[in-house]
Amino acid sequence: MSGDSGNPALLSNADATKPNKNQPFVPRITELRMLNLGYIRSSACRFSHFITSHSSSSPSSCFGFSPKQTITSALRSQMGSFSTLSRSSSRLLFRQLFENESFTYTYLLADISHPDKPALLIDPVDRAVDRDLNLVRELGLKLIYAMNTHVHADHITGTGLIKRKVPGVKSVISKASGSKADVFVEHGDKISFGNLFLEVRATPGHTVGCVTYVTGDGPDQPQPRMAFTGDALLVRGCGRTDFQGGSSEQLYKSVHSHIFTLPKETLVYPGHDYKGFTVTTVGEEMLYNPRLTKDEVFFLEQLIFENLNLPYPDMIDVALPANKVCGLQD
Amino acid sequence: MSGDSGNPALLSNADATKPNKNQPFVPRITELRMLNLGYIRSSACRFSHFITSHSSSSPSSCFGFSPKQTITSALRSQMGSFSTLSRSSSRLLFRQLFENESFTYTYLLADISHPDKPALLIDPVDRAVDRDLNLVRELGLKLIYAMNTHVHADHITGTGLIKRKVPGVKSVISKASGSKADVFVEHGDKISFGNLFLEVRATPGHTVGCVTYVTGDGPDQPQPRMAFTGDALLVRGCGRTDFQGGSSEQLYKSVHSHIFTLPKETLVYPGHDYKGFTVTTVGEEMLYNPRLTKDEVFFLEQLIFENLNLPYPDMIDVALPANKVCGLQD
Repeated sequence: MSGDSGNPALLSNADATKPNKNQPFVPRITELRMLNLGYIRSSACRFSHFITSHSSSSPSSCFGFSPKQTITSALRSQMGSFSTLSRSSSRLLFRQLFENESFTYTYLLADISHPDKPALLIDPVDRAVDRDLNLVRELGLKLIYAMNTHVHADHITGTGLIKRKVPGVKSVISKASGSKADVFVEHGDKISFGNLFLEVRATPGHTVGCVTYVTGDGPDQPQPRMAFTGDALLVRGCGRTDFQGGSSEQLYKSVHSHIFTLPKETLVYPGHDYKGFTVTTVGEEMLYNPRLTKDEVFFLEQLIFENLNLPYPDMIDVALPANKVCGLQD
Repeated sequence: MSGDSGNPALLSNADATKPNKNQPFVPRITELRMLNLGYIRSSACRFSHFITSHSSSSPSSCFGFSPKQTITSALRSQMGSFSTLSRSSSRLLFRQLFENESFTYTYLLADISHPDKPALLIDPVDRAVDRDLNLVRELGLKLIYAMNTHVHADHITGTGLIKRKVPGVKSVISKASGSKADVFVEHGDKISFGNLFLEVRATPGHTVGCVTYVTGDGPDQPQPRMAFTGDALLVRGCGRTDFQGGSSEQLYKSVHSHIFTLPKETLVYPGHDYKGFTVTTVGEEMLYNPRLTKDEVFFLEQLIFENLNLPYPDMIDVALPANKVCGLQD
């Protein structure tokens, strides 16, 4: 990452992103339940007994704690005042990470109420894999999935590198992407990690295989819901539609059918941002997105015009073949 | 911002950051209570009657809403499931914004349960002021404060530009900074916006006037607490100490006395990050900060060595005199 050289005004730690070789991070996989088609359709509630037992031990932090307990306590309720809900509620750890060469956001989610602290990464970037895995290790999480919202044209995915560095992690992508992965998902599938889950919504248009991952709908799931939209919907923008099976008609329908139908308070976490925004909401984009607030005819005309004025993507010829095989070519 | 040129892989909206001149944003100032020394020491509870009346009207959104109501609903509980608390609880809107030339984070906070939706910006950057003010306008907020954690050496503050563009906004900085501002704060002061407040903690060391702003401690304040540390404490790092009255001894004492004494789950939002991290926690930094986990003697030796190996800051000769006068020189 270009930022690794640091800034002369500040001291940062160059070694902080390097995994500690003396403490290898080898997670155990207990979460994956594969059906015969390779989809994940796990029950969100099957680990509730673990959460109950974990919660009952939490008062011990008032009297003293080990480093691991300290971190677990510190990470509880990363999404705000979630800790004030019932003690049996699931607890989401959430981190947004930025890769500043491709302006890509990577998302780390984990259920830290589950004894294994199962975690997943959405849209990891190859250049930032060591940073991401070091954070996972420091937070005491067990990474089980490395997922993509789509086949990226502007950077190389980190999923292959992650699988190589952390045996047992499963790569996840949509079946429609036509890419290599351990697990293929389709519209309506659920991806469970502990007592939390993501719902898969097919949102093609930027590419033929784009999906949006949305946190679950239910009393033990985070509120408000969170949508990881990849390049289907950006903060006040959307992905281009002139490569990789893209279709402006499809993109318009995808966003209106499967993202704008979510509750308006749903937090939208985009795949990229070029202006320094980190998050938006469904309600905001329904009001202020300069393209997707227009009617379909206007939208199609606008995207045809804008696509014509965009240059050929810099990295597409390198990134696409690499990303078809988790970023690692033979 | 360098990212404004966009990326060829995506469509973004170049006009989205420009304020609409047809809809001037002129907030009314109702929040400021100045004492004779120019400090802010407001009661966090004095607007509770507004919140009660606001909450009682919220069910109307079930039957239909104006665009403004839609956004208000969408913004409620940006910090997670805060909306599930009692209806009279304050609601924090929170946005983290990134300026990618100086790697600076700007923070927007607002009390959206208050009828005026009073808001403040921490560490705005001159280059990103139009983006920030447009977001404030779209979200229907009333900006009352433009604050700095310290006199920056690596970018020019946006507080002066904001005051010029939004009459009535008050600039805020520490008294110890020796800079020009409308409001000077000291350790222990409270800065109220609606029913929420920030507590001021003096954390000198990177500069003589550094402060950390911490969200309030109380039943109606956000949980976990949030600390905006400027350059006193970064994600696995800290600010250098060889300019602007910096002192390694002071920095060590500041962090250990006034940041590491906060609850371990406190979210730490830094003034910069060069590796793509957006947030950390007090508990994490107490375990993993490569400098501040060391004893004081080691820390002092390490910073002396590291300071010697850092180049003279690029922008310091331009930024310091400008930032002493809110970024605008005559």
